[in-house]
Amino acid sequence: MQNEPLTVRRRDLLSLIGTVAGSAAMYHTMTALGVASESRYTGPIHLDGDAKGASVLVLGAGLAGMTAALELRDAGYKVLVLEFNDRPGGRNWTLRGGAIFVELGGFKQTCAFEKGLHLDPGPWRIPYHHRALLHYCKRLGVALEPFVQVNHNAYLHASGAFGGAPQRIRAVNADFQGQISELLAKVANQGELNQAVSVEDKEILLLAFKSWGALDHNYKYREGLIASGYRGYAKPPGGGLSATPLPSEPVALSDILKSQLWRYFWNFARYELQTTMFQPVGGMDMIGKAFARELGELIRYNAKVTEIWQNDSGVTVTYVDANNPAQLQKVTADWCLCAIPLSILSQLPINVGAAMKAAIDAVPYGASVKVGLQFKRRFWEEDDAIYGGISYTDLPIREIGYPNTDYNKSGRGILLGAYLFEDANAFEFTAMPPDERVARAVEFGAVIHPQYRTEFENGIAVAWHRVPFTLGCSGHWSKEARKQHYRNLCGIDGRILLAGEHVSALPAWQEGAILSSLDAIARLHERVVKP
Amino acid sequence: MQNEPLTVRRRDLLSLIGTVAGSAAMYHTMTALGVASESRYTGPIHLDGDAKGASVLVLGAGLAGMTAALELRDAGYKVLVLEFNDRPGGRNWTLRGGAIFVELGGFKQTCAFEKGLHLDPGPWRIPYHHRALLHYCKRLGVALEPFVQVNHNAYLHASGAFGGAPQRIRAVNADFQGQISELLAKVANQGELNQAVSVEDKEILLLAFKSWGALDHNYKYREGLIASGYRGYAKPPGGGLSATPLPSEPVALSDILKSQLWRYFWNFARYELQTTMFQPVGGMDMIGKAFARELGELIRYNAKVTEIWQNDSGVTVTYVDANNPAQLQKVTADWCLCAIPLSILSQLPINVGAAMKAAIDAVPYGASVKVGLQFKRRFWEEDDAIYGGISYTDLPIREIGYPNTDYNKSGRGILLGAYLFEDANAFEFTAMPPDERVARAVEFGAVIHPQYRTEFENGIAVAWHRVPFTLGCSGHWSKEARKQHYRNLCGIDGRILLAGEHVSALPAWQEGAILSSLDAIARLHERVVKP
Repeated sequence: MQNEPLTVRRRDLLSLIGTVAGSAAMYHTMTALGVASESRYTGPIHLDGDAKGASVLVLGAGLAGMTAALELRDAGYKVLVLEFNDRPGGRNWTLRGGAIFVELGGFKQTCAFEKGLHLDPGPWRIPYHHRALLHYCKRLGVALEPFVQVNHNAYLHASGAFGGAPQRIRAVNADFQGQISELLAKVANQGELNQAVSVEDKEILLLAFKSWGALDHNYKYREGLIASGYRGYAKPPGGGLSATPLPSEPVALSDILKSQLWRYFWNFARYELQTTMFQPVGGMDMIGKAFARELGELIRYNAKVTEIWQNDSGVTVTYVDANNPAQLQKVTADWCLCAIPLSILSQLPINVGAAMKAAIDAVPYGASVKVGLQFKRRFWEEDDAIYGGISYTDLPIREIGYPNTDYNKSGRGILLGAYLFEDANAFEFTAMPPDERVARAVEFGAVIHPQYRTEFENGIAVAWHRVPFTLGCSGHWSKEARKQHYRNLCGIDGRILLAGEHVSALPAWQEGAILSSLDAIARLHERVVKP
Repeated sequence: MQNEPLTVRRRDLLSLIGTVAGSAAMYHTMTALGVASESRYTGPIHLDGDAKGASVLVLGAGLAGMTAALELRDAGYKVLVLEFNDRPGGRNWTLRGGAIFVELGGFKQTCAFEKGLHLDPGPWRIPYHHRALLHYCKRLGVALEPFVQVNHNAYLHASGAFGGAPQRIRAVNADFQGQISELLAKVANQGELNQAVSVEDKEILLLAFKSWGALDHNYKYREGLIASGYRGYAKPPGGGLSATPLPSEPVALSDILKSQLWRYFWNFARYELQTTMFQPVGGMDMIGKAFARELGELIRYNAKVTEIWQNDSGVTVTYVDANNPAQLQKVTADWCLCAIPLSILSQLPINVGAAMKAAIDAVPYGASVKVGLQFKRRFWEEDDAIYGGISYTDLPIREIGYPNTDYNKSGRGILLGAYLFEDANAFEFTAMPPDERVARAVEFGAVIHPQYRTEFENGIAVAWHRVPFTLGCSGHWSKEARKQHYRNLCGIDGRILLAGEHVSALPAWQEGAILSSLDAIARLHERVVKP
């Protein structure tokens, strides 16, 4: 009970600061007190007030479209969703054995994965601070398990360094941090920090370096059991008569610097990639499927939108039913929430104002390629003690993602064998036929895991520029384009408004799609109830 | 195929180095090549050769005892295990609703947890490099899930700093690293590293600091979106019209130093606590139960050993059956593998040589207390976005462990509300009655999570010095004791040899118990087949 008053004072204080000094000051105070919000998401949306039987046509049954459909339906709107694919989710998508995928250009792949194994070609992880997405997972009963973002025992690999041998993340990280600490302890001891740091702080700083940097009593980072306690041992401590550990030999700072392996450290530290990270049990599409179960008949699949036309009284959308393509279909509603990717929307006739049209046309879509590879056994666990997580390389495949499930089990497994994005290699892989993408992923991956050569069975490759329903991975906003066009993309243009990750400051993230959708329908609802 | 020759060359090279320069040099080379062994464990043990019907009495059905029993049985030995408790596992132990625990002193607790919830009062995590334990989990079909060791969004808390408000790990870590980087970039730019670092390396180092330390283009770590991309935002990026993020304000290095919060960083970096870390699905005792299922009738429960006596022809162990305490029982075998904790064994009559007896008496057992608390709802997830992992504090409770399972679900949950070890507070908590330990854990925990006050339901507290079957947490070896006694503890004394975490260089870890056991039975078997 002794601490209760503090809680009260804290709230009063924040309220006072918010009133007197504005929201920025309030948020700063909240951050300092450790109570800042974890997300833009402030809890379930409340669309209070009478929707007056208004109808909304939602275009696209991705997460943005389905979030809008769900909440608008609950608020009393008449809702219909038109979806291009024969399944819900859009980029929220999981490939399993038997799945058929035909990409732009006509290449057809049939996924040959063993039953129970899968690949998420689109989004594959959910940060703990994506609270809106987590809310819908909870509401819709989607079970989550950790996505291992930080695996100290996975590899960092630079083709031109260390004789081409991959290095353990733990070792590179400890050696970098240790030698940085040694450098700084040295200049501190020489008095060269005396202007920047008080005498008292310097003493603590030296202690901190010892612990954080694994320095010895002379403030040196060197081969020995202290450093090995961080970077790993040549032989770790054991049991019985042969228990004594053998230290490992650090890599010189200069070699780490030249290898450029430090460039991967941000993957273990940046806010958007911090732990705890999640994935749905069974595949990312469990989320899309859960939304669709809830929406049922409100989603019309196989519907390819060909035109979006509005006037003062409503919006008419023309579409082709893939099962009856000879005849154009038309459907009309009071409003249209369009969650079609801009890469597609920019090619459709739509009568919005010049500002929104310019915004729709202003955002190119990123190149990205993911390759899934099935292997006879989980050699990365059995041979290399890598359980989940990601290895990073300067080879074109960039990342190797290990499965974050079925740990320590026998039998087959799927690796994410390549994850290319936003570089020349992504375009090069996109230009290849799918089987060549798979072959190259195996060839490059074998440099890091020679077991590929004997254990590989089959693969599937998704190059997002060739995915018919999105023609790219995600909206790739330049700073200039965002400045000029973003607000125009967010507006309500007559009876049309847009949603999707492209209408957010979280590009390529599912949370961005959902937050943009919630922001849009809140404004739409306000318009409807207070015209 | 182009890389195949490298693999061959690498093996040849290692073999050559091993032959010419010895194993230390070989291990160093292996480390440099990234292929060093992950464990002392080199794969399943092979006890080849005829056991000649020899019998082994194993004392204690903890992991050391059961590993020995399993492997010796498979190698043709006649095996019997005597176990003090009415359950297998020893410290491998899980408390669930309905469990009754009577501690030394007579205090009786009945666990009141809701069905499906549990606490591991002993070991609770399995590092990826504990390969022997992982091998037995695989062999015995124990399913594993990640133990979240690194949760960037959990708290660091210092009572006397930041007005007592807990700080997010991500923020303290980013602010420390960023301001260290700024300091070092400054001295580098002033030329003060010129002796230690080449001109070329200095240029790369500055680039590395920018990325690793989240510095701006002037090499400053300051309030802004760059630093917020690591430490977290006052308002994170969102969707639609309100998408723009708001940066958070860093904490000054001096404040971090004085707060001592940097002392917790080792929990995210040390080899023994690195990720990927595991826990068995359903509780740690799934491992002990799986061993016991395999051993079946070979384990005799409720057997309290009172004397261990050997002569030239065998070993006789006297014990009391808890279900028939009036009459002493005796059992004889050719050999005895004793996995009884030294805290107990040192009090038993046993006729081993003076050296082993001195070793048995030389190791005090550590104090440790764990408290499990049940709450009405998972407020740490719902309110604080903390999913699994650990918060650290300088309050006596030291750690708050969040459940690494059932993420994002509604309903009740269990926190590890206190984890005290090796300090005065651990002794103080041990001295309290269990209900007071629970009450104190709630009181202290409420400083960090005020929700404790309204959400707490019930708790259970295990103080290891009062646990009848072990009288302490684990063998607490001093450097001097290890130097003087360790080898004597490992020897085969006549027909008796010892196993357990206390006979390893991995004290308190289950892997130490198993490795010590494997080391012991390998030497025993050698003695048996080549007398």
